[in-house]
Amino acid sequence: MEKKYVYLFNEGDANMRNLLGGKGANLAEMSKLGMPVPNGFTITTEACNKYYEDDEVINDEIKAQIMEYLAKLEEETGKKFGDAENPLLVSVRSGARASMPGMMDTILNLGINDVVAETIAEKSGNPRFAYDSYRRFIQMFADVVKGLSKKRFEEIIDELKAERGIKDDLELTADDMKTLVERFKEFYRTGLGEDFPTDPKQQMMEAIEAVFRSWNNDRAIYYRRMNDIPGDWGTAVNVQMMVFGNMGEDCGTGVAFTRNPATGENKLYGEFLMNAQGEDVVAGVRTPKKIDQLKEVSPTAYDQFVDICSKLENHYKNMQDMEFTIENGKLFMLQTRNGKRTAQAALKIACDMVDEGLINTDEALMMVEPQQLDSLLHPMFDADALAAAEAVTSALPASPGAGSGQIVFSAEEAKEEAEKGKKVILVRLETSPEDIEGMAVSQGILTVRGGMTSHAAVVARGMGACCVSGAGDIEMHDDEGYFVIGDKKFNRGDWISIDGSTGNVYGEAIKTVPATISGDFERFMKWADDRRRLKIRTNADTPRDAAQAVAFGAEGIGLVRTEHMFFEGDKIKAIREMIVAKTDDQMKAALDKLEPMQQKDFEGIYEAMEGRPVTIRYLDPPLHEFVPTNPDDIKELAREMNIGEDELNQVISNLHEVNPMMGHRGSRLAVSNPGIAKMQTAAVIKAALNVNKAHPEWNIVPEIMLPLIGDLAELKYVKKIVTTTADEIIKEAGSDMKYHVGTMIEVPRAALLADEIAKEAEFFSFGTNDLTQLTFGFSRDDAGKFLPQYYSAKIYENDPFARLDQNGVGKLVEMAANLGRQTRPDIKLGVCGEHGGDPASIHFVDKMGLNYVSCSPYRVPIARLAAAQATIENEK
Amino acid sequence: MEKKYVYLFNEGDANMRNLLGGKGANLAEMSKLGMPVPNGFTITTEACNKYYEDDEVINDEIKAQIMEYLAKLEEETGKKFGDAENPLLVSVRSGARASMPGMMDTILNLGINDVVAETIAEKSGNPRFAYDSYRRFIQMFADVVKGLSKKRFEEIIDELKAERGIKDDLELTADDMKTLVERFKEFYRTGLGEDFPTDPKQQMMEAIEAVFRSWNNDRAIYYRRMNDIPGDWGTAVNVQMMVFGNMGEDCGTGVAFTRNPATGENKLYGEFLMNAQGEDVVAGVRTPKKIDQLKEVSPTAYDQFVDICSKLENHYKNMQDMEFTIENGKLFMLQTRNGKRTAQAALKIACDMVDEGLINTDEALMMVEPQQLDSLLHPMFDADALAAAEAVTSALPASPGAGSGQIVFSAEEAKEEAEKGKKVILVRLETSPEDIEGMAVSQGILTVRGGMTSHAAVVARGMGACCVSGAGDIEMHDDEGYFVIGDKKFNRGDWISIDGSTGNVYGEAIKTVPATISGDFERFMKWADDRRRLKIRTNADTPRDAAQAVAFGAEGIGLVRTEHMFFEGDKIKAIREMIVAKTDDQMKAALDKLEPMQQKDFEGIYEAMEGRPVTIRYLDPPLHEFVPTNPDDIKELAREMNIGEDELNQVISNLHEVNPMMGHRGSRLAVSNPGIAKMQTAAVIKAALNVNKAHPEWNIVPEIMLPLIGDLAELKYVKKIVTTTADEIIKEAGSDMKYHVGTMIEVPRAALLADEIAKEAEFFSFGTNDLTQLTFGFSRDDAGKFLPQYYSAKIYENDPFARLDQNGVGKLVEMAANLGRQTRPDIKLGVCGEHGGDPASIHFVDKMGLNYVSCSPYRVPIARLAAAQATIENEK
Repeated sequence: MEKKYVYLFNEGDANMRNLLGGKGANLAEMSKLGMPVPNGFTITTEACNKYYEDDEVINDEIKAQIMEYLAKLEEETGKKFGDAENPLLVSVRSGARASMPGMMDTILNLGINDVVAETIAEKSGNPRFAYDSYRRFIQMFADVVKGLSKKRFEEIIDELKAERGIKDDLELTADDMKTLVERFKEFYRTGLGEDFPTDPKQQMMEAIEAVFRSWNNDRAIYYRRMNDIPGDWGTAVNVQMMVFGNMGEDCGTGVAFTRNPATGENKLYGEFLMNAQGEDVVAGVRTPKKIDQLKEVSPTAYDQFVDICSKLENHYKNMQDMEFTIENGKLFMLQTRNGKRTAQAALKIACDMVDEGLINTDEALMMVEPQQLDSLLHPMFDADALAAAEAVTSALPASPGAGSGQIVFSAEEAKEEAEKGKKVILVRLETSPEDIEGMAVSQGILTVRGGMTSHAAVVARGMGACCVSGAGDIEMHDDEGYFVIGDKKFNRGDWISIDGSTGNVYGEAIKTVPATISGDFERFMKWADDRRRLKIRTNADTPRDAAQAVAFGAEGIGLVRTEHMFFEGDKIKAIREMIVAKTDDQMKAALDKLEPMQQKDFEGIYEAMEGRPVTIRYLDPPLHEFVPTNPDDIKELAREMNIGEDELNQVISNLHEVNPMMGHRGSRLAVSNPGIAKMQTAAVIKAALNVNKAHPEWNIVPEIMLPLIGDLAELKYVKKIVTTTADEIIKEAGSDMKYHVGTMIEVPRAALLADEIAKEAEFFSFGTNDLTQLTFGFSRDDAGKFLPQYYSAKIYENDPFARLDQNGVGKLVEMAANLGRQTRPDIKLGVCGEHGGDPASIHFVDKMGLNYVSCSPYRVPIARLAAAQATIENEK
Repeated sequence: MEKKYVYLFNEGDANMRNLLGGKGANLAEMSKLGMPVPNGFTITTEACNKYYEDDEVINDEIKAQIMEYLAKLEEETGKKFGDAENPLLVSVRSGARASMPGMMDTILNLGINDVVAETIAEKSGNPRFAYDSYRRFIQMFADVVKGLSKKRFEEIIDELKAERGIKDDLELTADDMKTLVERFKEFYRTGLGEDFPTDPKQQMMEAIEAVFRSWNNDRAIYYRRMNDIPGDWGTAVNVQMMVFGNMGEDCGTGVAFTRNPATGENKLYGEFLMNAQGEDVVAGVRTPKKIDQLKEVSPTAYDQFVDICSKLENHYKNMQDMEFTIENGKLFMLQTRNGKRTAQAALKIACDMVDEGLINTDEALMMVEPQQLDSLLHPMFDADALAAAEAVTSALPASPGAGSGQIVFSAEEAKEEAEKGKKVILVRLETSPEDIEGMAVSQGILTVRGGMTSHAAVVARGMGACCVSGAGDIEMHDDEGYFVIGDKKFNRGDWISIDGSTGNVYGEAIKTVPATISGDFERFMKWADDRRRLKIRTNADTPRDAAQAVAFGAEGIGLVRTEHMFFEGDKIKAIREMIVAKTDDQMKAALDKLEPMQQKDFEGIYEAMEGRPVTIRYLDPPLHEFVPTNPDDIKELAREMNIGEDELNQVISNLHEVNPMMGHRGSRLAVSNPGIAKMQTAAVIKAALNVNKAHPEWNIVPEIMLPLIGDLAELKYVKKIVTTTADEIIKEAGSDMKYHVGTMIEVPRAALLADEIAKEAEFFSFGTNDLTQLTFGFSRDDAGKFLPQYYSAKIYENDPFARLDQNGVGKLVEMAANLGRQTRPDIKLGVCGEHGGDPASIHFVDKMGLNYVSCSPYRVPIARLAAAQATIENEK
């Protein structure tokens, strides 16, 4: 049987969203519910996919079906394309499975040509309306279908206004509009070397194809990547009879929400304009009226609309966002969809609807986007202040929140100025571990280089500090105390503002409003906690971060990156002494200095976590990360260390690696240098013993995690160093404290041999960052250069470092989880990479049946909700 | 039932080699055959493994069994440990499954104490012999079991000789020997703080433990790694009654081979000494006699020995290497094993034995070590000249063969001097692609840095040039025209010699002898070709290499690294123009220059291969490999390119990557820069069309291989560039030439998703170098720093870049092969990494059922034989 690629509105319903797109399915559903919807038909998403399969051609089969349905539409409406008596005009709109507002193309008033325009002029008695519609159509068609510059059309209008000596578009007469139509057609002809098509069928077919094409325009691809919408969904196309809100004073158009999308208040919220088309509401030439006022202007339509609103909300069990048009006093519904809302509104609506008995708590949980919660946890720009500001550049939204402060160029400067009580934004080419303290005191961090998982981004997210990264437009002259964007120069001390949720950078101070967590939040999160199966831990390296994460609901720490502590105070000095040590005695002396400092670090964390589990990962990065790189710093360090500069340079040069990501790091450091693992073990065990003494009720059981393990023998070797040291200390202390030793699974080989590794590992924590790097062969630090080209070429749709690659990396995770359980059925499994805070990745992790995810403190609430949603969905 | 850890010689046989070790199994076999073997027992390899499992303790169960078997031995021999009448003396020797000559420890004369020495002195009537044996035992025991310095014992002897005013050991009297015994015991006491053990049982138990321990001494670990012997095999220990070749003139000892191990001649070959112990033969104090002469000295023993030799060779169907001792005219066999032999001898023996009807051709094929063939293909040092030379340093045997020449420090110098007819050795810190021409004209390459898979090593093996790499002892002052090893200075123009088969470097000219391939070789390789299932291809980048590989039996090219051609002549200039191109026109101009040059390259290769299949891989390395790094070269290039130095520096700095191995390379270059893939496609297709025109009978079908693919969409994208370009050219040429497009599998993700990739890939070639890097997370360039520690710690036994890691990487290969075949049952599968020339890896590849391996030209014969052996073994 022939495949059905086209559906009349009255053939579909809301369940057919995948096939008909959101808009098409909802138009069909409203038709089904007997609501007034202008007739039309939907060309399916499958037709779109077929179009791409066929190398961007609409095949004859689909074309024939479209023609067949056009005929049906003409029959239903009694109007005909190009008819001199009763011409059919249609809109052609995209409509994907998920709402992608503004990303794809729309064409209105399709079907007009000279004959039709004249007919409309006559029938409506409004020639200006007729020719205005005509010129708008030409303009829109030329732009959307043919890619002709919009600008030139505006110039033609300006030229005519100049000729006519008028300023306002409204002063243009019907004849002027006719002139514009002629001039537009002329420009179309010269610009494209062909006449503007007069055959409405041709117009329609070209428009449909343009909509298909727009599925893969750059901004749609970008939007999909940001919103996690697969490229193979495709878009449907809706062809719908036009109704006109601009045919007279008993006409109008508007948009409305069933509840307030900003606050969540349960009250109809919206705007309308009489005698206007949709684009006029958006354009803001005239000020729209509040929806309540429609009652006075068009009481019948209003009452009908209110009734429909209530029915739709009850029907969809969600707040609705609707478009309507009133044509000669008659109401038409053009769209309904679940409305976008602020996080605050989302929580209120969810809680209210539960209270109203409209939905149950599971439905409430599914109603809120986990990512949205983020905005509740960070300061944001004041909306009015923001509206008045203009971005000077835009880069990656690396860590959410908003910050405003004076420019500083180094961590030292940041600390100095912050101590004076100033607010600062730290602007750097890129950050390094040495910058951590300076980052902590800044209102935000702006970097020229680096992606979403650069050092700056990762650390900022951990701190909850806002960060914009990869701002390549910035020309840095930090040595001279300024930077340049385009033709604007920004000096040290100038005010700038950055929005880590959008990536925007502003060249001025913008007022911020603090984070606000409402009562709905606690109630809602409790539902999530009751529902989720996954435990949520956090990645935290300091007592402060740990406490913050607990406040956000973390149930433990899944990853303490011990090296992040190494840059504080005297520790870095001792680390460097260790690195330059030439004899065993020097090495031991340096480690002896470090041990009590590390112990204190761990005690602080154990205290902050009050008995919750804490997984401590041993030293992971290559040692060259701890030595300075610029000649002055090296000179200074040589003096401090009391060794020759040449000698130090030799040490540093010996540490150099061609591919440091795959170099001498992780447990490889423990193999070559067991003293480090011994020292860290002593620090962990002593800290736990001490804190247990003060708080016996906490009963801390240390979890020691060995990084970058690739073989059972390697794990055994390092584990033995750990257990020998730990057992001796515990015995000496006369304690019977238990502890666990586990491993990161971050090297593909460890995943492949997880059954063997599990013989010695009591738990696995998937380090999905490194696992992603090695599985793809992508250097996280370098992939930024070529990944954008992969997005454009539609090879990859998501940054695999932000969203877990379920096909490839996920296959390894699944394999490792299964193999691990085969050997050790009760093995504890978690994820501690950046993906631990990503809802889609959490969904996958839940499906794999792992025990927990660990994410940065500020993502804990997101993870809690995402985990609850995963439980609900995976139960289905 | 209790496990049996000890076997009397008469309880075992040759099939129990895994349990009893080679020596033990063969002693048992000879016993069984009724040959005269001194009684003894073997402690199994399982006891050794148990010893390590128990943290290096011999447990009570094993101890008890040893004591039980000692009692049996005492009963069999009628002698007793420590007995004043008839004392039992034993040797304690290691014996692993595979022969590891000299790697582990041996103790002779065990059982002597003061009482026993006196008894022996009396019974033998030879007190000097008795006390000489005693002092030797103390010395050996102290060294092997207790690790006491051998040197001090030699000093004590020298001191006594000085006191006595004598020079020759032979002048030492029985009383002198007694004095030495006392002084040795005294030194033992002060050195170790304990008395020399007088209880023979204690002596034995400590000796056994020392042998177990010696399984893991550094040289044994190194030997195992070099010879591919697993560490978990363990060693057996043989405790055997001593017989003495040094008790008088009717005593003697010797070693012999059933055939000549140097030439293979079928004639008994060996040496003996009368009135001597084994170590005297080795020490070279007296000159041993030819084995024939034994006929005159001890005719009965000789006849018996000749008879035994013949029986043993017939029994083992292999040339035997035997040790014997004659005690008072009676012959004792102390060992037999398959004899080591030169490659030439190995081939002759294998062919002769087939002709003699002793073995069939399969057995002949299994008899020759594939690696050995290598020595037939390269020049070698003249054996006598080599014996007279002393190495100044030793490093990695990176590419086999021997070379002698005058020192040069740059590729240019090498070319200049070679043109003058001089022989040169190129000495470099490390080589880069720019050095290729200089390498080609040198007698050998010596590098300070880099491992077995460094650039120098890989390229040299490809060329068949000898190379020693990673000679870290060299202190390089190439700018000043010299280098230093220890206290020796070597100037430009000085003669040195390097042995790429051993890694030795000599500070002088040494005569070399050219490669010689005998008639046996052709005959033998024909058997291999008839037997093997795997096809053997070669990795070759030039017509010269290709022709060489064909001469060695290659059936095609599995890997043309197109980038290796880029450094010749004008090509590098055009490449650099492409890299610095700022506009599409500049880019096109550069590519237009390159295309005919590449086409000519490919035509040369197609012609050399005369219709054999050729797989051409597209540009793989990151572009920064093609730009200079030092300021002078950059300045020159800027001038050549006619661009600013700053601008060029900017281009170069933009190309910099943190982890280039995982960076912008492979097909990622084709995605960002389709012009390169188009140019290479045009060159391949036009070359094939041209050569097909001249040689229609060859019917070349180009095989285009895309590197570093990680996703189906990526492959599709790049393949489309290829097919669009290729189809157009083929159509224009009016040809119907076919071509294949396939992919490297070298990124773990490609292996995991091989079922998808196979939808578009017509063949897979496993790039096991990169696959190993990414699966382990080991940077090949950096792992050299920590891998040695992994060997010492017994975590890894082999360099995973030399020997395919079957557990981890192999699992991915197997998975990918299965998934690929699932989608495309007839998919062609091969390996083109370095492992393609490694026999153990070839064995694995054969087991996986892949179609071919591809290796460097000089490894083709090795691969042919290894593949035949794999077929034979895998059929079992």
